[in-house]
Amino acid sequence: MNRKKLEGLIAAPFTPMQSDGSLNLAIIPAYYEMLKANGVKGAFICGSTGEGVSLSLNEKKAVAEAWAAVAKEDADFIVMPLLGGTCLTDCKELALHAQQIGLDAISFTAPFYFKPASVDMLAKACSEVASVVPDMPFYYYHIPVLTGVGFSMIDLLKAVDGLIPNFAGIKYTHEDFMDFLSCMNFQNGKYDMLWGRDENMLPALALGTKASVGSTFNYAAPLYYQLIDAFNHGDLKAANALQQQSIDMITLLGKYGGIATGKAYMKLLGIDCGEFRLPVKNMSAEQFEAFKKDTEQIGFAEFSSRLQPAVNV
Amino acid sequence: MNRKKLEGLIAAPFTPMQSDGSLNLAIIPAYYEMLKANGVKGAFICGSTGEGVSLSLNEKKAVAEAWAAVAKEDADFIVMPLLGGTCLTDCKELALHAQQIGLDAISFTAPFYFKPASVDMLAKACSEVASVVPDMPFYYYHIPVLTGVGFSMIDLLKAVDGLIPNFAGIKYTHEDFMDFLSCMNFQNGKYDMLWGRDENMLPALALGTKASVGSTFNYAAPLYYQLIDAFNHGDLKAANALQQQSIDMITLLGKYGGIATGKAYMKLLGIDCGEFRLPVKNMSAEQFEAFKKDTEQIGFAEFSSRLQPAVNV
Amino acid sequence: MNRKKLEGLIAAPFTPMQSDGSLNLAIIPAYYEMLKANGVKGAFICGSTGEGVSLSLNEKKAVAEAWAAVAKEDADFIVMPLLGGTCLTDCKELALHAQQIGLDAISFTAPFYFKPASVDMLAKACSEVASVVPDMPFYYYHIPVLTGVGFSMIDLLKAVDGLIPNFAGIKYTHEDFMDFLSCMNFQNGKYDMLWGRDENMLPALALGTKASVGSTFNYAAPLYYQLIDAFNHGDLKAANALQQQSIDMITLLGKYGGIATGKAYMKLLGIDCGEFRLPVKNMSAEQFEAFKKDTEQIGFAEFSSRLQPAVNV
Amino acid sequence: MNRKKLEGLIAAPFTPMQSDGSLNLAIIPAYYEMLKANGVKGAFICGSTGEGVSLSLNEKKAVAEAWAAVAKEDADFIVMPLLGGTCLTDCKELALHAQQIGLDAISFTAPFYFKPASVDMLAKACSEVASVVPDMPFYYYHIPVLTGVGFSMIDLLKAVDGLIPNFAGIKYTHEDFMDFLSCMNFQNGKYDMLWGRDENMLPALALGTKASVGSTFNYAAPLYYQLIDAFNHGDLKAANALQQQSIDMITLLGKYGGIATGKAYMKLLGIDCGEFRLPVKNMSAEQFEAFKKDTEQIGFAEFSSRLQPAVNV
Repeated sequence: MNRKKLEGLIAAPFTPMQSDGSLNLAIIPAYYEMLKANGVKGAFICGSTGEGVSLSLNEKKAVAEAWAAVAKEDADFIVMPLLGGTCLTDCKELALHAQQIGLDAISFTAPFYFKPASVDMLAKACSEVASVVPDMPFYYYHIPVLTGVGFSMIDLLKAVDGLIPNFAGIKYTHEDFMDFLSCMNFQNGKYDMLWGRDENMLPALALGTKASVGSTFNYAAPLYYQLIDAFNHGDLKAANALQQQSIDMITLLGKYGGIATGKAYMKLLGIDCGEFRLPVKNMSAEQFEAFKKDTEQIGFAEFSSRLQPAVNV
Repeated sequence: MNRKKLEGLIAAPFTPMQSDGSLNLAIIPAYYEMLKANGVKGAFICGSTGEGVSLSLNEKKAVAEAWAAVAKEDADFIVMPLLGGTCLTDCKELALHAQQIGLDAISFTAPFYFKPASVDMLAKACSEVASVVPDMPFYYYHIPVLTGVGFSMIDLLKAVDGLIPNFAGIKYTHEDFMDFLSCMNFQNGKYDMLWGRDENMLPALALGTKASVGSTFNYAAPLYYQLIDAFNHGDLKAANALQQQSIDMITLLGKYGGIATGKAYMKLLGIDCGEFRLPVKNMSAEQFEAFKKDTEQIGFAEFSSRLQPAVNV
Repeated sequence: MNRKKLEGLIAAPFTPMQSDGSLNLAIIPAYYEMLKANGVKGAFICGSTGEGVSLSLNEKKAVAEAWAAVAKEDADFIVMPLLGGTCLTDCKELALHAQQIGLDAISFTAPFYFKPASVDMLAKACSEVASVVPDMPFYYYHIPVLTGVGFSMIDLLKAVDGLIPNFAGIKYTHEDFMDFLSCMNFQNGKYDMLWGRDENMLPALALGTKASVGSTFNYAAPLYYQLIDAFNHGDLKAANALQQQSIDMITLLGKYGGIATGKAYMKLLGIDCGEFRLPVKNMSAEQFEAFKKDTEQIGFAEFSSRLQPAVNV
Repeated sequence: MNRKKLEGLIAAPFTPMQSDGSLNLAIIPAYYEMLKANGVKGAFICGSTGEGVSLSLNEKKAVAEAWAAVAKEDADFIVMPLLGGTCLTDCKELALHAQQIGLDAISFTAPFYFKPASVDMLAKACSEVASVVPDMPFYYYHIPVLTGVGFSMIDLLKAVDGLIPNFAGIKYTHEDFMDFLSCMNFQNGKYDMLWGRDENMLPALALGTKASVGSTFNYAAPLYYQLIDAFNHGDLKAANALQQQSIDMITLLGKYGGIATGKAYMKLLGIDCGEFRLPVKNMSAEQFEAFKKDTEQIGFAEFSSRLQPAVNV
C-alpha cells in the first residue's frame, strides 16, 4: 500500500443534535463549508468530540453518510470515522459501511471495558477489524485518558508491523513525547503520526508533526495555521504566544465543565450543534453568558474560525 | 412499587459461542437446567461475564430472548439483562425489548468512556433509562474496577431516592463494605443490595446480605450454598474453610489469565460455551491441561455444580 | 520464636503537639490512662495517625520514650512504633532504639517514594530492617492508599516465610478480604493478622479477626468492644447497628477534611493533642463548632471513650 | 530579590556508595571535575537520582558538605539540595544547613505520604520551608510520578506569587507541556522553569527552556549540548536524531530495571558510585555484561561524558 500521509489540520467534528437529543444532520453541509473556509483538511467523525460512544450503530451510519455526501467530490478533504472500541462485531460492520459509502480511512480505539491484557491482544483486536477492509488505511486512536489503555505506541507499531498491511498510523492523543518521537522515527517514518493534543501543538511541531487531529480546529483553525506558519518561519516567540492563546481557550473548557464547552464555542461561530448527550454535563444559560464574557477577554473572535472565508488566509 | 427482594444465588451466565465466535444459543436450555439443578435463582445476562460489551444490539436481544424462552414459565427464576452503559439510546431500546419479552428486571452501569462528572449526572443517566420502563425494577450495576466510576453508592441512593420510582437496588461488585453497609441500612433497608464479589461472600453475609450475583455461581453453586448454610448455623469455622475453597478456585482465574478461565470451568462441567471474544485472551490447549490438573488439586469436582441434581441439595 | 498473638483493640495514638507545633509529650501519661480505662490493649505509635512521617528522627525517639515510660510496668499493654519507610538507615536506628527502651514490637511500611518493583524487593527491605532486632516481633504495615504499594499480602507472606524469622504478622489497612482471609489461613494461621479498617470491623470479625489496630479506638473504644461482644454472642443485628454508628462517626472525618478530624474528636474527650502538622489541613474554629453539633446528632457521647472508667465495662 | 535565571545543564548526581552501602564521598571531587569537563553548570543533589529519600539527615548533610567543598570557589557552578518532602522539621534544618555551608539554592517537593489536599496547602508547606532562608532561591520540585501530587503548577505559581518572596521557580519533571508553557509565560516569565525530562528536551526547547536538570546529564552531557546547539541553529533534523539517541539510551534504563541503571552508565565512564540502596533493585553481574553490549549498540561511547575534557567542547 503506497499511502499518502496526511497534512494540516483535521477537525474532529461535534455531532449536531436537535433540542430533543436526536441527530440534526441538516447542519452538516454548512459545517463542512465552514471547515473548508478555514482551511481544514478533513473530518475525524464519531470520535470523542463526536460522541461516538453515545450514538447507536444506525446513528453512526447516518452521521457517516451525511459527511460522505458533502465531501464526496472533494479529493482534498479526508473523512475518517472512529468505529468504536468494545464491540468488534459492530466495528467490522461499520468498517464495511465506511468502505461502501466511500470514506477515506477508518479508526479504532482500544476496547475500554475489558482492556487488552497485552500489546499483542490489542494488535489482534486491531487486526480483526482492519482485515475486513484491507484497502482502507487503518488508524489506531490512542487516548489513554479515556480508554485507560496506556501501552507505549512504539510497542504497538512493532506488534502490527508486518501483521496488519493497512495499518497506516496513529492518532496520538497523549503527552508521551518520548514514545511519540520513537513512533515518528520507527522504520524510517513509515507510519503516519497524527498529533491529537491541540494545547501541545508547538512541541509536536518541533518533533516533525505534519498533521494534527483535534476538536479545537472546529472553531479556531486560523489560530493553529498561524502557529504552524510562525513555527515554519522560525519565529518561536510568535509561535509561543499563539500556543498560549490556544491554551487560554482550552482552559475555558476546564472552567466550564469539559468537553461540552466545545459546542458552546460552536454556537459563538453561528453553528448550533445542540447539547452533548448524557452522561456529559452541559452549560446552563447563565454559564453560557459568563462563558461568552470570558471568550471576549481572551480575544476569541480574533482567532476563531469564520463562517465566511477570511481574506488572505 | 411493592417489590419483593431477591434471595439466594443469581448466576451471571457466560454467553455461549460457536468456535467461529458467533452465538451458540442452542446451549441455553441445558445451561438453564443445570443452574436450576444446582439451586440457582436467576440469571444476570449480558453483564461482564456475559460479554455484553462485546455483543451487538441484535446479539444482546437474541441472548435475552433465549433466556426469556427457557424461563418464561418459571416464576422462581429471575432473568435480568445488563443493558449497557455508554449509549443510552441503545439502553432504552433494550429496556423496552426486555419488557416486551417478559424479563423480570433491568440493569445499567455507569457510562465508562465519558464518565459522569458527579453522582447527579450518573443519577440523571439512570433516570433516563429507568423511566422508559417504569414498571420494571431497575438495578444499578456498580463495578468500578471495569467502569472507572467509583462514586460511593450511598450517594447514588440519596440522589435517586424520590427521583427514580423503579430504582430497586444495586448489584455491588466492589469491596467498600463501609459504603455497602450504609446502603443496606439506608431508609430502613429500602433498597435491594445484591452482593457481587463471590470471593468475599462471608463478610457480606455478616452484614446481612440475602442475595448475590456472581460468575462462579455458574459452576460452583453448591459450594456457596454450603457456605450460606454454615453461616446461618453459626458455624464460622466451616464457613471460613468454604470461603477459602472459593478463593482457591478464583485464584486460578488470575493464574490462567482472567475472566476467560470461567468458560474453562464450564467445560469441566460439560457445558462448552466456547471462547471469549477479543480483546479477552483465552487459554491455549496446553494451558487447559495444566488448568485441569490445578482444579483437581483444589478438589473442584467435590463442590462444583452438576448437570444432574445432586441428592439432598 | 514462640509469639503470643495480640487480642483486642490496639489504638494508633495521635502525637500530641503544642500550639506552636512542637511535641507535647506531657500529655502522654493521661492519654495512656484514658486508653487503659477504656480497655485498649496497646499503642501503635508514630503511624499514620501518629504523623510519623512528619516527625524527625529525634522526635520519633522522644515519642517512643514517652510511651515506653508510661507502659513499662504494664505487661498487658503493647507498644509498637512504626519505624518509617523510605530510609532504611533511619528505620534500623529506630529499631535498635525501640529494643533499647523496651518496646514490644516494631512495624515497617513499604518505601513509598521509590516503590519496590516486586514483592521480593519488598521482602528484602523488610529483612534488612527486621534482622537488626532478631528478638523483636516485626509487623508489616500494609496501607496501599497511602504508600501506593499494593502487592497482595499473601505473596509477601510466601516471600518472608523462612526468610525473616521474626516476621510476626501484618497490620492490614486495606479492604481486600480475599487477600486478608488467605493470609489468615496461610500456614495454619501462623501469622498475626491485625485488622486496620475500623469501619469494616464486622466483616473482619466474621473472618476470624482477633486483634485490630485503628485510630478511632482512641476515642470510641467502647463502641467497638460492644460490637465485638454482640458478634461473639451471635447478635448480628446489634453488631450491624454498632458498625453503622462507627461508620457515621467516620463519615464525619471525610466531611471535615480527613485525618485531622481525629484530633477534634480527642478534644471532645478532654485530651487536647493540638493540630496536625503541614501538609495536613486542620479545622477552623467555626468548623469545630459545626463538627461538635454533628457529633451530638450521631450520639458520640454515648459510645465514646471516657477519661474515667465507666462502670461495668 | 533580583535573581539570575539558570542556564544550561544541571546534573542530578548519584550519591556514591561503598560496597557496604555506606557513603563514598571521596569520589565527589573527581565527580565534580568530570561534570565540569563536560560543561555541566550545576548539581541538584539528594534528589531522586541522588537517593535523598534513602539517606538519613546526617548523610544528607555530609553529601551537601562534600559538594559545597568542591564547588565553593566556583561561581559558575550551582549546588542545590533537595531538602525532602514529608518532614518539614527536617527540611527546615537542612535549609539552614544549606545556607550555612554556602549552597546556592534549595529545593523541596510535595509531601508524598500525607498528600496536600489542595494547592493552598502545598503552598503553605512551601512557605514554611522557604521562609527560614529568605535570601536563598527556593525551587519547587514537581515530580508527580513519584510523589503522587499532580496539581497544575500554574495554580501553584498563582498561589505562591506574593506569598513566598524567594520562590524562584520549578524543576518540572512531568510531561504536561500545556501547564509548563503557562508557567513559562506567567507574569512575563518571572519564574525560572527548569526542565526535568531529558527524553523530551527538544519539545521543551521549542517552548523556550533555557535550563534543564536531569540524571542523564551525569553521563551524556555532550549529547544534550549538541542537541541544544542543533536546535539553536534551526537544524531540527539533527536535533531530532540526537533526541532519539537520548531516548535509546533512556530506553535501556527501562530494560535494565530503572533508576539503578544510571549508576551502571557511570561505571562505564569510570566513576563507580556503587549501588542504589533498597528498595531499588540493582543489576546482577550478568545483566551488567548484557547492558554493556547494548550500550555499544547505541553508540554510547560516542556521545557520553568524558573524564577528560574533549577537545573543542
